[in-house]
Amino acid sequence: MELIVELLNITTGGNRIAVVSQQTANSLGVHSSDRIKITVGDRALIAIANIAENFPDNRIGVFEETEAALNLKGDEIAQVQLAPLPESLFNIRAKLRGERLREKDIVAIVKDVVERHLSSTEIAAFLTALSIHGLSTAETEALSIAMITTGKSLNFGRSPILDKHSVGGIPGDKTSMLVVPIVAAAGFTIPKTSSRAITSPAGTADRVETLCPVNLSINEIKCVVEKTNGCLVWGGSLELAPADDLFIQVEYPLGIDPMLLPSILSKKKAIGATHVAIDIPTGTGAKIKTLQEAYTLASDFVDMGKRLGLTIQCALTFGDQPLGCSMGPALEAKEALATLMGGGPPDLREKAISLSSMLFEMVGVENPRGKAEQIIDSGQALKKMCEIIEAQGGDPKVKPEDLPVGPKHAAVRSEKAGKVLWLSTDDLVRIARAAGAPKEKGAGIILNAKLGENVRKDGILLEIYAERSSKLTAALELANELSPIVLSKKPEEKMVLDTIPEKTTHKKPFMIDR
Amino acid sequence: MELIVELLNITTGGNRIAVVSQQTANSLGVHSSDRIKITVGDRALIAIANIAENFPDNRIGVFEETEAALNLKGDEIAQVQLAPLPESLFNIRAKLRGERLREKDIVAIVKDVVERHLSSTEIAAFLTALSIHGLSTAETEALSIAMITTGKSLNFGRSPILDKHSVGGIPGDKTSMLVVPIVAAAGFTIPKTSSRAITSPAGTADRVETLCPVNLSINEIKCVVEKTNGCLVWGGSLELAPADDLFIQVEYPLGIDPMLLPSILSKKKAIGATHVAIDIPTGTGAKIKTLQEAYTLASDFVDMGKRLGLTIQCALTFGDQPLGCSMGPALEAKEALATLMGGGPPDLREKAISLSSMLFEMVGVENPRGKAEQIIDSGQALKKMCEIIEAQGGDPKVKPEDLPVGPKHAAVRSEKAGKVLWLSTDDLVRIARAAGAPKEKGAGIILNAKLGENVRKDGILLEIYAERSSKLTAALELANELSPIVLSKKPEEKMVLDTIPEKTTHKKPFMIDR
Repeated sequence: MELIVELLNITTGGNRIAVVSQQTANSLGVHSSDRIKITVGDRALIAIANIAENFPDNRIGVFEETEAALNLKGDEIAQVQLAPLPESLFNIRAKLRGERLREKDIVAIVKDVVERHLSSTEIAAFLTALSIHGLSTAETEALSIAMITTGKSLNFGRSPILDKHSVGGIPGDKTSMLVVPIVAAAGFTIPKTSSRAITSPAGTADRVETLCPVNLSINEIKCVVEKTNGCLVWGGSLELAPADDLFIQVEYPLGIDPMLLPSILSKKKAIGATHVAIDIPTGTGAKIKTLQEAYTLASDFVDMGKRLGLTIQCALTFGDQPLGCSMGPALEAKEALATLMGGGPPDLREKAISLSSMLFEMVGVENPRGKAEQIIDSGQALKKMCEIIEAQGGDPKVKPEDLPVGPKHAAVRSEKAGKVLWLSTDDLVRIARAAGAPKEKGAGIILNAKLGENVRKDGILLEIYAERSSKLTAALELANELSPIVLSKKPEEKMVLDTIPEKTTHKKPFMIDR
Repeated sequence: MELIVELLNITTGGNRIAVVSQQTANSLGVHSSDRIKITVGDRALIAIANIAENFPDNRIGVFEETEAALNLKGDEIAQVQLAPLPESLFNIRAKLRGERLREKDIVAIVKDVVERHLSSTEIAAFLTALSIHGLSTAETEALSIAMITTGKSLNFGRSPILDKHSVGGIPGDKTSMLVVPIVAAAGFTIPKTSSRAITSPAGTADRVETLCPVNLSINEIKCVVEKTNGCLVWGGSLELAPADDLFIQVEYPLGIDPMLLPSILSKKKAIGATHVAIDIPTGTGAKIKTLQEAYTLASDFVDMGKRLGLTIQCALTFGDQPLGCSMGPALEAKEALATLMGGGPPDLREKAISLSSMLFEMVGVENPRGKAEQIIDSGQALKKMCEIIEAQGGDPKVKPEDLPVGPKHAAVRSEKAGKVLWLSTDDLVRIARAAGAPKEKGAGIILNAKLGENVRKDGILLEIYAERSSKLTAALELANELSPIVLSKKPEEKMVLDTIPEKTTHKKPFMIDR
C-alpha cells in the first residue's frame, strides 16, 4: 500500500525501524517485529515494523537510520508491503529448540546482527539460548570467525604480535599497565586495546585515561605502535568486532555472557595478535569462582586458539581479593606508576612479572622471568611507559603524586584488633562506585588490610576518596552497612557467613568487564 | 544532572523510554537498557534509557508514554539520574540460570511487564528461558494467577459459565461458531472470546466478523450475554490478561510458546468460566503432533484447572487435515451457517456435537449427545446464532449465500486419478494466505478432496477464491509449486516425502493462534 513518509528525526541506535498505526499494520498483515519492505522511487529497504496505537493511518514514520539509507526528505509516497522474515531468524529459532547451528547459519546471524536486520528482542533470545544450551566447539569457532570477518582488522606488518587479556573480575587489576611497557621495552610489539568499566570501579581504558588520551583512531594507534612497540588504548570505538559490541549491549541487562571465548578471541585476531597470554583470575572475588571452571575455560581457550591460528597460554591467578590496594581510575594509575618505579604492592609486581615472562617464554626468550625483572628494575619499563604516554598525547614527565585524586576523603577504621579472615570484593566494588568511580576519575578506595594481614584496634581498614562530599558520605554509609572486611583471630569465631531470611538475599553479582 | 526535555511526539507502543546521547549516558554512568529516574517538579518516574549517538548532549528525549506520565510540555528542566534495576530483572536472571522462581518472583515479573518496566529484550530473554527450561507446576500456577490479577475480569452474576477453547493449529476449525449457539440454546451461559488469525487463514474473530461486529466493550458483551446467553467476540482489546497480550507480541517473532497453559487459563478465569472444554487437535496438521504430547498437555490442563478452580475436560481431536472444507473468513462463516442449517461437512458437525455434549455432560445434562443433536436438528442452534448476530449488531436474516466471497476464483485439478493419501495443511494455509486471507475476508480456499477420498483425473482438488487477480495468480502458482495434496492408489507408490539437499529445507512452521 502507499503511505506518506514522516521523518521522526531521531535515531534508534542502529536498527532500521519504521512506525505504522495499528490499523495500517492490520491492512498490511503486519504484526509487531514483522519486516516491511519500503520502496521510494528506485530505492528499497527492509525495516522492522513498530506498531503505534495513535500514529496517522496514512503515514509511515521513519527513524534516522532508515531516512539516511533511503535518502528521504519527508512527505514522499512510499510503497510499503509485508516482507519475509530474514533467514537468520529461522536459525535463531532452531537454536531456541536446542539444535546445533551450522557455520552458514552462524554467518547469517552475525551478518544480520551487524547489518541491523535483527531486532534486539531476537538477539536477546539468541544469546539466552546460547547461554542455556552452551556452544559446541564448531559453533564457537564459527562465531569467532564470523565476528572477525564482519569487523575491521589491523595489520602492523610485524611478527610476532603479543597480547595480554584478563577475563576479568577482580577489582584493582592494573596489570596491563605494567605488562605492556615491560614487553614493549624488550623490543616486542604489544598493541593493547582495553575496555572501560561497566560494572567495576575502573577498566584499563579508564585508568590509562588519567595519564593520556585513549580514544585513538586506527591510524593513530599504528603511529604509536610504530614509535614505541606498544599502546594502551580504548577498543570500544575501533569496530574490531562490531557484532560483539552489539551482543554485549544486550547481554549486559540480562547478566549473561555466553560468548566469552568468541568475544575475546575475535578481538585478538582482529588486532593481528599471534601470541596471547590470558589471565583467568580464579576465586571468590572473581568471575570464575572455582579451579575446575578455570581449567575448563583455559583448555577451551588453548584449543580455540589453535583453530584460529593463535598461540595461547593461560594463567590461573589468585582471585580471592583485589589486586594491589587501589580501586578507582586515578588511584590505580598512581599505583601502577609507583610499581614501575620500583615501589608498589608486591602482588601487583609479581603478577605483572609472571604474565610478562609467560609472553617472553612463548616467543622463545631465554630466562624470561629474569628478563622481565631486569626490565622493571632497571627503569626501562618506566621509560617505555612514559614514551607510550607521550606518543598517545599525554605528559611523559607525569609522577604518581601529580595525578589528582578526590579531595574529599575519609578512613574506615577497625572496631577491634584481628587478622583479615575474608573480604568481599563485591562489596568493595560497590563502595568504590558509591564514591563516584569510574565516572569521577579521582574517586575510589585504598584497601589497607588484605587477606591474612593483622589490623590493630582503630587501625585503618580502607580509605575512601571522592570528588564530592555527598558521594563520600554515601560510600562511608555503605561501608559501614556492608562491613566488607571480616577480622578474626581464629576462623571458628565467624563460621556463619549470612542468615536467611533475616537479611536480604545478596544478588549474585554479574561482571561483564573484559 | 539537569537536562532539557524534548518531546519526541511518537509512541513506543508501551514502554517508558527516554533518549540521551552517548556522552550524556557516560556522564550519568548509564548503559543501554539501564534505568534512569526523571524528576520534573514534584513528579518522577523510572524510564528505560535508549542511547543515541547524535542526540544533543544537554537534552533528554521522551516518547509519548513518558510525556503523558509526567505531564510534560517540552523544554522543562528535568533532574536525571541512574536508577537501580527493577527487582524483577534479577528474577529473570535467576530463570536464565535455570533456577526455580517463587510465587513472589513471578508476581514481580508479571507486574513489571504490565507496567512496562521491563524492556522487550528482557521479556524475550525470560520467555526464551521458560521455553528451554520449561515451567514447574507451581510456576505455571503462579503465572496464571499473576496474569489474572493484573487484568480485568468479567462477572455475569450467573453460574455455571461454560467455555470452549482450542489450543489451535488446524485450519478451517470453525467449531466455536456451532458450539456457542448449541450451548446457549440449551440455556447455558457461554461468553466466548476469540483471537484473530496470526499465522492461519482465519481466527474465530475473523470468521464471525463477516456476520457482525466482534470488537465489543465489556459492557456491550454483558448486554449480549444477558439477552442471548452467549457471544462470539474478539478478546484482543478487553485487557483480560494484558501480560499475556504483551508476551504474545514477543513470542511471535521468536516462534516460541512457553506459556500455553497460563495464557489460556488466565483468560478463561478472567471471563468467569467454571467449566471449560479444551480441544487439542492432534496430528501432522496440528500444533500438537503426537498423541503422547497431547495426553501430557491434557493432564496438565486438568490438573492446573483444579488448582485454579476450573472444571476442565479435554478432547484429543483428529488433526491430520483441515476441519470441514473451507479456509478463509467468509468461506468458513458460510460453512458454519450451512452446518447450523443441517447441511455442511460431516466432520464439522460431528466435532461440534461432540464438544457441545462434553460441556453438557460436565454440567450434568442427561443424554448430552442426544441433546446437542436435537438442538442443531430442530433449528434452535441456528435461531440462537441469529439472535447472537443481531445482539452484536449484525443482520439476523443473513443466509450463507449472502456472504460475499472473492469474485476471482479458479480450480486446481488433479493430473491423475487416485485416492488422497496425505495432504499438507501447512501448504494449504500458505496458499489460502497467498490468496489474501485473513486480511481480505472473501479470500481463501475450498478443499474438494480430503483424506481417503477418491479423485478422478481432472477432478477438482481445491478451489481458490481471491479479491484481486494478482493474489489469485500468486495463490495458483504456489498451489502448483507446493502440490499440497498427494494421491496414490497404494501407499508404496509414494514412500519418499522429500529429499535433502536437492530441495530447500522446509521451515518448521510455528502456530501461535489460540
